[in-house]
Amino acid sequence: MFRLSILGCGSALPTTKHCLSSQVVSLHDKHYMIDCGEGTQMQFRAMKLNFQRLGHIFISHLHGDHCFGLPGLISTLGMLGRTSDLHIYAHADAVQLFKPILDYSCRAIGYSVFFHDFNPSQSELLFENKGLKVTSIPLKHRVPTAGFLFEEKEGNRHIIRAMTDFYKIPVSKMNAIKAGEDFVTPDGVIVPNVRLTLPADPAMKYAYCSDTAYYRKIIPIIESVDVLYHEATFANVDLKRAKETFHSSAAHAAEIAKEARVKQLILGHFSARYTDETILLREAQEIFPNTVLANEKMIFDIDAKKIKNK
Amino acid sequence: MFRLSILGCGSALPTTKHCLSSQVVSLHDKHYMIDCGEGTQMQFRAMKLNFQRLGHIFISHLHGDHCFGLPGLISTLGMLGRTSDLHIYAHADAVQLFKPILDYSCRAIGYSVFFHDFNPSQSELLFENKGLKVTSIPLKHRVPTAGFLFEEKEGNRHIIRAMTDFYKIPVSKMNAIKAGEDFVTPDGVIVPNVRLTLPADPAMKYAYCSDTAYYRKIIPIIESVDVLYHEATFANVDLKRAKETFHSSAAHAAEIAKEARVKQLILGHFSARYTDETILLREAQEIFPNTVLANEKMIFDIDAKKIKNK
Repeated sequence: MFRLSILGCGSALPTTKHCLSSQVVSLHDKHYMIDCGEGTQMQFRAMKLNFQRLGHIFISHLHGDHCFGLPGLISTLGMLGRTSDLHIYAHADAVQLFKPILDYSCRAIGYSVFFHDFNPSQSELLFENKGLKVTSIPLKHRVPTAGFLFEEKEGNRHIIRAMTDFYKIPVSKMNAIKAGEDFVTPDGVIVPNVRLTLPADPAMKYAYCSDTAYYRKIIPIIESVDVLYHEATFANVDLKRAKETFHSSAAHAAEIAKEARVKQLILGHFSARYTDETILLREAQEIFPNTVLANEKMIFDIDAKKIKNK
Repeated sequence: MFRLSILGCGSALPTTKHCLSSQVVSLHDKHYMIDCGEGTQMQFRAMKLNFQRLGHIFISHLHGDHCFGLPGLISTLGMLGRTSDLHIYAHADAVQLFKPILDYSCRAIGYSVFFHDFNPSQSELLFENKGLKVTSIPLKHRVPTAGFLFEEKEGNRHIIRAMTDFYKIPVSKMNAIKAGEDFVTPDGVIVPNVRLTLPADPAMKYAYCSDTAYYRKIIPIIESVDVLYHEATFANVDLKRAKETFHSSAAHAAEIAKEARVKQLILGHFSARYTDETILLREAQEIFPNTVLANEKMIFDIDAKKIKNK
């Protein structure tokens, strides 16, 4: 189960209503940040997230509203006494952009910051550990931009305690049973794993696609994800502006969600021009009903049971 | 009359209670910003200040909590269609710090940003126009730091309408009368200016001193100002920490206010460790009674009538 925390879902200009782009995907007590607009560290704190659990930051592109919060966050982590490494995944230019400010202002911090550059024009595996895989999603924007696909790995099967007790399975064998092995009794009888365990929780998938024009090439990559966050900067009435700025309308986002057969769509990256965003929601829901609007401090539990219920 | 708007008065670590350092001094419909920590543009907007009236930004020193809001603010001003110049007064290193990020992210903005460097180790005239003078105040901190003295210039005398009507003074002479000249009637009689006008409003003085250790050398520069904003990062119980970090206690701020015979003291730059800042207020008021605590979105009208009433 992923937990998604929305720190900011406004577009370029911060308003009194929305903060700049940032969100946190949490899995197994670790936080993975996506984008880091100005003010992200304040939102992170306001949402009572734990700075120590943050180890990896994925930056979609180098427009200020998606990355200008990095120097302040890095500096604050230093003041909080951090010692563990911080990994930032971004376009190669991020180093040129941020190194002078970090060299000057963060030279005394007690931990290392590693920039990992990637090529946003192709889908690449950016990060992998035993529970999670993060892959880039090439997007279509005014500057090189990538979204991110978070794929949970399938966990262990669930032990049926009554059965393992019945067969007196020793503790030393439990991990193998959870991993799917059959059990052989001292008499040589094979007990098939399906009698001892229930299936593992389904591995969940979350895709973040912002900023981008309507771009059908992402469909095979995000096919069938449980939750898709797709930018919806504009309403249909401003389609011309969406085209000029390489952004999407809410209807575009919904078209992508529909064709990729995702389970739920979250709209975000709202232009400051809409005081009432229900127009965006309505336009998307006409095409893809299971759509919601993002908002600051919203939390989505990306959990098989919850997503199915919709 | 100055109007002082507090955008942020927290210290290094932003909290859910306080924003990072920034304030705006307004005079004759122009805004002058002092410091620009991360999140300043959001606070500026939340306080309904007008971006078009902002032309000059004074940066006390290059610690992140006083300047990391610059790239976002500069970028936002560009997106809002600004065409007029923006002047930033800061230590010379500001260029090395911010130029890469501005060159990269703000190359398409339609206005020019000028960095004016100054030497924080001596008091210098930084800015002057017909209504205002801004001078630097050398402070004592871990890096080169200066405060700022804002001095209003004396305005025009106030016409006594009944008298100018009585003497049938033509409109063409009014500016000279306001400036203090006597009036000569067609018959050659000299009417002294004091019969025609009341004195101009007193010119006000405001001093900003943050960040700094207790530093008596500033006293002659800020002597008798109407309002002094002085950092008060720590309470007496944390005096050792204040010394180590080159910050002041609330009592230090009050000592400075008392010796400089200022009219009112505003405390700010509070450490995140105090959930209740009345301890700072109490410790300062024991030494200098006319003390108040700064807070986000507070507005102080620095006006002779109001300051005297206290």
